[in-house]
Parts: sequence; structure tokens; C-alpha cells
Amino acid sequence: MSGTTPAEEAARLLAEARMAALGTLGAGGYPVTSLVAIPTAETGAPLLLLSRLALHTRNLAADPRASLLLRDERAADPMAEARVTLIGRISPVAGPTARARFLARHPEASVYVDFSDFAFYMLGIETAHLVAGFGRIADMAGADLLARLG
Amino acid sequence: MSGTTPAEEAARLLAEARMAALGTLGAGGYPVTSLVAIPTAETGAPLLLLSRLALHTRNLAADPRASLLLRDERAADPMAEARVTLIGRISPVAGPTARARFLARHPEASVYVDFSDFAFYMLGIETAHLVAGFGRIADMAGADLLARLG
Repeated sequence: MSGTTPAEEAARLLAEARMAALGTLGAGGYPVTSLVAIPTAETGAPLLLLSRLALHTRNLAADPRASLLLRDERAADPMAEARVTLIGRISPVAGPTARARFLARHPEASVYVDFSDFAFYMLGIETAHLVAGFGRIADMAGADLLARLG
Repeated sequence: MSGTTPAEEAARLLAEARMAALGTLGAGGYPVTSLVAIPTAETGAPLLLLSRLALHTRNLAADPRASLLLRDERAADPMAEARVTLIGRISPVAGPTARARFLARHPEASVYVDFSDFAFYMLGIETAHLVAGFGRIADMAGADLLARLG
């Protein structure tokens, strides 16, 4: 973590993230993981553009509890690099700001962003769990992480 | 999917996977995502080498329901590429075969494989959910996927 605090390291991962593994609660109570593209909203909350046809969106409609795993996608040895799990609840978010922010990081989404089955959501981060390498593990409140975003 | 069936595509992702996003059930019933290294066992089941000090291992001790998200780590646009979520239960697995198989794919794990807090586990795949690009979604039984492994 080279001189940074756990909250600063988690905030860096959130600021730079393009992709995440989303955890939702599926049929039979199983935790279901799926791939999502994310940028952050102005509030620092992760933004998601989800199709209501997708399994994770159906899961979230039944139970909003969720998590997002963020990591450095370019790492040669991902297990040796920092990653953070953001845990909270996902809710719909409206408005052109989310759309502009999403497309700024994911221009490829312009192909489907206006399809009628897609809508924007955000994760309200309640807690975060940082693994910054072997034995360097820290839990923090979502507010502490968001306070570190530049 | 270029001429392959969904089960064949899912089996390819499983055979080639080096990393996965693990979903477990955490405190308060939240689905918690974390990063794990995986190879497959001789049976085709994904193998995991987990520390009992890690959050996901504590979660699994309380509830074995889990999932693994596998994808092509080298994809330039991950959302355009196939990925599969394997859903089932994780249980301990003993023996030197798991160790040899794990180290063959993850030689970097030789540093910690024999630490006393690490042990091997496997996911018994009950169902699988394949997303092979927009609108190309398929659910299958775990047995159908495992039957396609070479």
C-alpha cells in the first residue's frame, strides 16, 4: 500500500475501476456473481447500467443487497495486487448525469445505452473490505472510503 | 459462440480459467465477492486454495452456497466476451492430487501452499449461467457442462 491508508487504497481502486464482479442473491439464496462495467457517479457511488432481462437485475429486484469486487485489471499476478469488495444495496438512479458519466468511461456502451430494457443503478456503499496483498486486510465504513475520493 | 454449444463454451472457460470472482454469503446475508485463483480438478470441478483467515472462507464455513464467475482475462472488451457463472456448494477436498494440480497452473502459490492456514476446496457445480455476448444467454445443469470437458 506504499504509504497510503486502506481507505485511500480502496478509493484509488474505485476511482480507476472500469469493470467489476457483481454479487447478487439468486434463486435458492445462492450468491450469484456476474460481470458489469462501472464508472463512479459524482457522489463516488459506483454506477451500473443493467438490462432488466439480465439475471442480476432480476435478483436485485427481489433483494437489493449486493457487492462489487474491484481490482487492477492490468495486474500480471492479480493475487499479489490490491482489490476491494464494496458491500451495500443497489437502487435505481435517474437522470442524464449518470448517462454522461457512464459513456465517458464506457463509450462502447453507446450501442445499447438507450435500449428500453437498460436503466442506471448505483451501489450505496455500506462497508468495504480491502485485500492489499497477503495479510494486509482492512475493513472500513463506506463513508470513510468515499471521503478519500479526490 | 462460433459453432459451439453453450455447454461447450462454458467448458472451455472452465478449462482455461486461472482466476475467478467467488461469491459467498457474508454477514447480514449480503452476497460477498472476492478474488480467487482456480484450476480444475481431475473431475472438472474448480479447485480453490483458501486461507481460513480470509473472509470468504469464514463465510463458506457458515454457508457453503457459492458461485464462481469465469471469463477470458485477456479480452480487450470483457463485456463483449463470453463469461460463465458456476453455481453450487463448496466443500473441502483432501490429498496430494489437488496440490499438484493447483501448483501446475499456479506455481506462484508454492510460496504459501503449505502454510498451516491454507487448505483445498472444490465447487460442486449444480447449475451454470453462460453469457456469451448480448442476448446470448443460456442456463445449464452442472453435469451437462462437466460432460463437455475434454
